[in-house]
Amino acid sequence: MTPGSPGRASRRRAPHLAVCSRSMASKTPVGFIGLGNMGNPMAKNLMKHGYPLIIYDVFPDACKEFQDAGEQVVSCPADVAEKADRIITMLPTSINAIEAYSGANGILKKVKKGSLLIDSSTIDPAVSKELAKEVEKMGAVFMDAPVSGGVGAARSRNLTFMVGGVEDEFAAAQELLGCMGSNVVYCGAVGTGQAAKICNNMLLAISMIGTAEAMNLGIRLGLDPKLLAKILNMSSGRCWSSDTYNPVPGVMDGVPSANNYQGGFGATLMAKDLGLAQDSATNTKSPILLGSLAHQIYRMMCAKGYSKKDFSSVFQFLREEETF
Amino acid sequence: MTPGSPGRASRRRAPHLAVCSRSMASKTPVGFIGLGNMGNPMAKNLMKHGYPLIIYDVFPDACKEFQDAGEQVVSCPADVAEKADRIITMLPTSINAIEAYSGANGILKKVKKGSLLIDSSTIDPAVSKELAKEVEKMGAVFMDAPVSGGVGAARSRNLTFMVGGVEDEFAAAQELLGCMGSNVVYCGAVGTGQAAKICNNMLLAISMIGTAEAMNLGIRLGLDPKLLAKILNMSSGRCWSSDTYNPVPGVMDGVPSANNYQGGFGATLMAKDLGLAQDSATNTKSPILLGSLAHQIYRMMCAKGYSKKDFSSVFQFLREEETF
Amino acid sequence: MTPGSPGRASRRRAPHLAVCSRSMASKTPVGFIGLGNMGNPMAKNLMKHGYPLIIYDVFPDACKEFQDAGEQVVSCPADVAEKADRIITMLPTSINAIEAYSGANGILKKVKKGSLLIDSSTIDPAVSKELAKEVEKMGAVFMDAPVSGGVGAARSRNLTFMVGGVEDEFAAAQELLGCMGSNVVYCGAVGTGQAAKICNNMLLAISMIGTAEAMNLGIRLGLDPKLLAKILNMSSGRCWSSDTYNPVPGVMDGVPSANNYQGGFGATLMAKDLGLAQDSATNTKSPILLGSLAHQIYRMMCAKGYSKKDFSSVFQFLREEETF
Amino acid sequence: MTPGSPGRASRRRAPHLAVCSRSMASKTPVGFIGLGNMGNPMAKNLMKHGYPLIIYDVFPDACKEFQDAGEQVVSCPADVAEKADRIITMLPTSINAIEAYSGANGILKKVKKGSLLIDSSTIDPAVSKELAKEVEKMGAVFMDAPVSGGVGAARSRNLTFMVGGVEDEFAAAQELLGCMGSNVVYCGAVGTGQAAKICNNMLLAISMIGTAEAMNLGIRLGLDPKLLAKILNMSSGRCWSSDTYNPVPGVMDGVPSANNYQGGFGATLMAKDLGLAQDSATNTKSPILLGSLAHQIYRMMCAKGYSKKDFSSVFQFLREEETF
Repeated sequence: MTPGSPGRASRRRAPHLAVCSRSMASKTPVGFIGLGNMGNPMAKNLMKHGYPLIIYDVFPDACKEFQDAGEQVVSCPADVAEKADRIITMLPTSINAIEAYSGANGILKKVKKGSLLIDSSTIDPAVSKELAKEVEKMGAVFMDAPVSGGVGAARSRNLTFMVGGVEDEFAAAQELLGCMGSNVVYCGAVGTGQAAKICNNMLLAISMIGTAEAMNLGIRLGLDPKLLAKILNMSSGRCWSSDTYNPVPGVMDGVPSANNYQGGFGATLMAKDLGLAQDSATNTKSPILLGSLAHQIYRMMCAKGYSKKDFSSVFQFLREEETF
Repeated sequence: MTPGSPGRASRRRAPHLAVCSRSMASKTPVGFIGLGNMGNPMAKNLMKHGYPLIIYDVFPDACKEFQDAGEQVVSCPADVAEKADRIITMLPTSINAIEAYSGANGILKKVKKGSLLIDSSTIDPAVSKELAKEVEKMGAVFMDAPVSGGVGAARSRNLTFMVGGVEDEFAAAQELLGCMGSNVVYCGAVGTGQAAKICNNMLLAISMIGTAEAMNLGIRLGLDPKLLAKILNMSSGRCWSSDTYNPVPGVMDGVPSANNYQGGFGATLMAKDLGLAQDSATNTKSPILLGSLAHQIYRMMCAKGYSKKDFSSVFQFLREEETF
Repeated sequence: MTPGSPGRASRRRAPHLAVCSRSMASKTPVGFIGLGNMGNPMAKNLMKHGYPLIIYDVFPDACKEFQDAGEQVVSCPADVAEKADRIITMLPTSINAIEAYSGANGILKKVKKGSLLIDSSTIDPAVSKELAKEVEKMGAVFMDAPVSGGVGAARSRNLTFMVGGVEDEFAAAQELLGCMGSNVVYCGAVGTGQAAKICNNMLLAISMIGTAEAMNLGIRLGLDPKLLAKILNMSSGRCWSSDTYNPVPGVMDGVPSANNYQGGFGATLMAKDLGLAQDSATNTKSPILLGSLAHQIYRMMCAKGYSKKDFSSVFQFLREEETF
Repeated sequence: MTPGSPGRASRRRAPHLAVCSRSMASKTPVGFIGLGNMGNPMAKNLMKHGYPLIIYDVFPDACKEFQDAGEQVVSCPADVAEKADRIITMLPTSINAIEAYSGANGILKKVKKGSLLIDSSTIDPAVSKELAKEVEKMGAVFMDAPVSGGVGAARSRNLTFMVGGVEDEFAAAQELLGCMGSNVVYCGAVGTGQAAKICNNMLLAISMIGTAEAMNLGIRLGLDPKLLAKILNMSSGRCWSSDTYNPVPGVMDGVPSANNYQGGFGATLMAKDLGLAQDSATNTKSPILLGSLAHQIYRMMCAKGYSKKDFSSVFQFLREEETF
């Protein structure tokens, strides 16, 4: 289940020819910071491709498995930067990313000139740009490369990466990201990887809630849910949420709505991404009327016991009947 | 361009075998009430299929063309009902439909037992149910069969009809509707044709505004519009509004956004359909948070000069830059 | 507790001098249709002022108490109209009002010329206008006079009536309404009584939700609720919901928030009034962005167990914490 | 005209007795950073009370007037901190405040132990807390003290200050702030000054839009605007926006709606404050459904030519009629 994941058509480009010291020997160590639910399987896929790792996580326990497998664990991001000139960061929030880069023992304290720093965290694009500036001052390169796809996709190497940064460095990033995902899409300047992810997930949230509202209204007006879904899907109401991930139990198999909204993409994560969309919209003075309201709806769902359910459970949230 | 039009998969059923007086001789006259922009080409398609027509419109001028072609024009809906036992009504609002059926000279004054009355107006499903009850009391049959597709589709016989009513009568309705459209979909009991149309168009409005917001935000965050559309379309944000009818000028050819939002499906019509969705939701106590807000947005657009532009012009409405 | 109740400044006008047959003997019988929670105490206050009553309710049990007290109970609205030339109706919905006036045994079947028909139900102003037209055709007079104030205010004769109709008849209406309420406000043509009530309650709902959001946000940002209420109340955020009916427990005494949101004005009733506002706005093409959203919020509250709580419980609805 | 301004009841406390070096001689120099539209008259009021000033602004021209008057102008915030142990900052955005405090030549580079730093900018309370932490590390004291009231109130010493910070230092802050405003309200810990202002202005925006919607709907339903305002103001819909600052032209004198929405509190400033409310709500996971939508509405108004009009012009924005 991979909300937000661009499909088949990844961008395949000719390999980048400019030889730079860092990529000459492609199996030099790669740094990896953030070994959580997502970072863990991603790092393992790098290992499977033969890259020695330099590992750091604020929770030492998260590193143990890698240490046992013979990888090198260090005690702070700065030490990762001292030992590796290509580093992947995979962190939960903007604040964690800032700390890992600019903190007292952050990457920037010891980063080598020419290093390639790829941040796969989903954070505010304005923060990505800020980090890129600081990295550039040190003579290194920063790219934002948020993923779409969940833990399952991370394990099966099916993630999609949306990459922002200098185009000349895209091939170098692709070499590593291609070991962890099946699609690596170049989006433009630094921050546009984040932007693409945020815009997609905002539209996803809106069309999911819209699908839930339309299905619920139709059912109350006497339509059979399967028939209504069929009509929508051959009409102009068609969307991914109606034809691939329908939120109404009984309409489709193999989706969270068929399994009591277990698994999938949690309402909390959707609320977080909508918070980023909100911040970006406020910063750029872009009106997002439905996006804002979608954000508030997921916010409320999180407060009413839906935080761990798949985000398609908004149908369940809306359908409850009035009682008198 | 046919917002709301279910595609290829129309419902093909075995012809209805029960012989009833009305359909014995299939080319007996058919009544047609409401010869406006849509009714005019629809009635002409019935003529082309060899059906003699009994015509009525509140504006006598609308009938002239048919009179010249040899069809019979009468002076009120009741007179139509006296001369035809199959009648199509195609009227702009609930109030017009109520007048045509229950008014002082309405159909019900002279309707014959066993008549088939098909209302193709887009109106409140609660009104359709009300009319059906009154028709039934007179021993006749009522079906709601709103269309999707615009004037062009009406001319080229490409309309889709979403039909609500007794299933046993569907084949009889299909015989006539099939002369005017390429898809005739059975939706369930009376009112469900309206319900299906309303639900589809509400979801369409929501995903169109969502697409406009996401595209606008992405552009302000530095993404190329064509690239962003491509990413959305291979991802979970994909919808009819993003992949078939993209609202951003320059992204697609042959859609209203490529032609200054001329043609297509006007913002006023979308506002009207959202008003019906709102009414239905209020009546059934169904929460439609995004649907309500979408309604208000089209309402405002109509007040700000967008009433005659295609409904995808919401992108233009949102994109205007703040000036200081 | 009387949401919606205009205070002291009722409109005091000189008594209407034109002598018409109906008011000559002021203590001729008055008809009363609808003896529910509100109608019951209202009718009793008329009795206390010495008016003999002609009573009807669809539920015969509702009439028993009045029959025992010697009032005359009849078997349909038409019979009320036969025996009384001044009639008060107090019914729960538009549909009930239409039935009582225009139904098979409705008032209009036997209404006498010159009768004064006062509808105190809260219904769609468009329905009030429709009824007024039909009443006028029969040579009688219709006024809409919805109340604000609840059951307590009805008992203590503290209701406010907002009256729409021909100004010349206002004094005649005031004679009766003044027996049941302390404020009788003339609002303009037929339907404006409903309009005033609907507009007030919509603004009330909006400012109540706004107060709940602002108080909740302030508390989460570290402000003491009492201090925040005090600051708002001396500032431009001040409103009836913040200074007279504060929704946060512990801020004020003697309001529903101090008593677990018992009593007061139920969320269901607010949802109903917002539904009427929505209908009126759709009919008049008036944008009500916040009003629509407020409607949806109360709709959801009703579905989530808040239907019988006071409408200020929206604070409780919003404040629930996200859990992970 | 002072949206957001707490009135009469300022908090009067006994003077703070603890003698600290900084306040011994009360007329030691005070630093002032940010001499814009608001800062200029505020600084002049400090001068009138006999305080020598140490001045800095990024635009040297803004300082000229003070230099000519004999005040000392320095070349960076650090130099202000070197020469004054009480400093007021009055800056337009969070970014400017961060720069003034933590920038390369910021206050923190040369701040003396025990200094009192008062920030009167309206910024994100989370930023205020961050600055407070850094200031505290240097052994100095930080308070947030945003104002309500506009340029006129600044000139006439009628501002209201909402103050957050250590309570023991409030009296010291009050000594200076009382020279520039008539109300100085203690709100609690650092950041609560900002919180109070943001919450008030969010509620103000919501009730203003609600008033505009209710007035507009009522007018379209046939009510006289003055009568409707009167009814609301004696009812539960009453709020500051309806009774003190009514947005409908012709209802009140001496308010922006009586003067083509000139003067007052610009829509741009309201949009900015709602952006801060949005950020704070996202950070604290507080649902603000109406607050978010109000933000988006002011955002749109700014894009449609209302940026410099008073924020009550939302009535004009909504009232435009649909044309066909």
